[in-house]
Amino acid sequence: MVFELKLQKLTRGNFSSFGEVIETDGAERIMINEGTTERFHDLANIDVESDDGHTLVNIFRGQPRPQPIEIKMMERHPLGSQAFIPLQNKPYLIVVAPFGDRVGPQDLHAFRAEGHQGVNYKRDLWHHPLLVLENDHDFLVLDRGGPEENCTEYWFTAAQGNAQIVL
Amino acid sequence: MVFELKLQKLTRGNFSSFGEVIETDGAERIMINEGTTERFHDLANIDVESDDGHTLVNIFRGQPRPQPIEIKMMERHPLGSQAFIPLQNKPYLIVVAPFGDRVGPQDLHAFRAEGHQGVNYKRDLWHHPLLVLENDHDFLVLDRGGPEENCTEYWFTAAQGNAQIVL
Repeated sequence: MVFELKLQKLTRGNFSSFGEVIETDGAERIMINEGTTERFHDLANIDVESDDGHTLVNIFRGQPRPQPIEIKMMERHPLGSQAFIPLQNKPYLIVVAPFGDRVGPQDLHAFRAEGHQGVNYKRDLWHHPLLVLENDHDFLVLDRGGPEENCTEYWFTAAQGNAQIVL
Repeated sequence: MVFELKLQKLTRGNFSSFGEVIETDGAERIMINEGTTERFHDLANIDVESDDGHTLVNIFRGQPRPQPIEIKMMERHPLGSQAFIPLQNKPYLIVVAPFGDRVGPQDLHAFRAEGHQGVNYKRDLWHHPLLVLENDHDFLVLDRGGPEENCTEYWFTAAQGNAQIVL
């Protein structure tokens, strides 16, 4: 069984139960530096401090997967949020699922993010690993460093089937 | 008195006493996500947790200052590091000074950063506010949220003079 996943346009509103969209539109704006800089303030809830965790800064360089893009697994980070901010202005895809112990292909929500939009996944949110559409797409990634294992993968069973993204 | 500031090319080596250069070159590299993603790991020391602080995520949109660029003041954040990661691949300038209670125009070090290079200023480092060369240059900025005032400005006195960047 293959579920077809339709892409939604990413907005603060339709992503709010999964995390934050990191973008200037709709953000609190403060003028600083003698009027030479706009500060768009406090765009994501970085939730990494439990169990002696701290914020890690990384760059992820993603490569596209073959099309049609198949979604056969999901992962989550029980101890920390994870943010992805694109460093080149190119669109990319996001697949997430509601919180819960179980996840299957019928639970998935897929979004198309524009290149000026970052996202921050809430701690423990089911999400698919990075899905880019062009070669060498770099992202700044903010996640948790610290003790304890912080990644759980779940691969769909044959009975559950897979999902496929409709581009 | 006007001191002339010559620009150095930014490298991990010449910036190491001031903070980290956030770039893929020279970073620890881990393959993840079934070989579709390179993770360049742990690129900056985010030092924001003292006195109940936490990591803030912001976007700064900078505008160029008139040329020649005059450096008349410096600032520092006694409670936290501050990182700037360019979101468009355009060069920008950095002016910092060694740690210490006093700062003057003769203490300054100026760097030209390329658009793929971010920087993280150590906590309490003297630095100049954002200096961009083109309109609407956006940066992801990671700094400290929390109680307590966290910005000290110092304006050079007439006896100290100013500095000017030689482009």
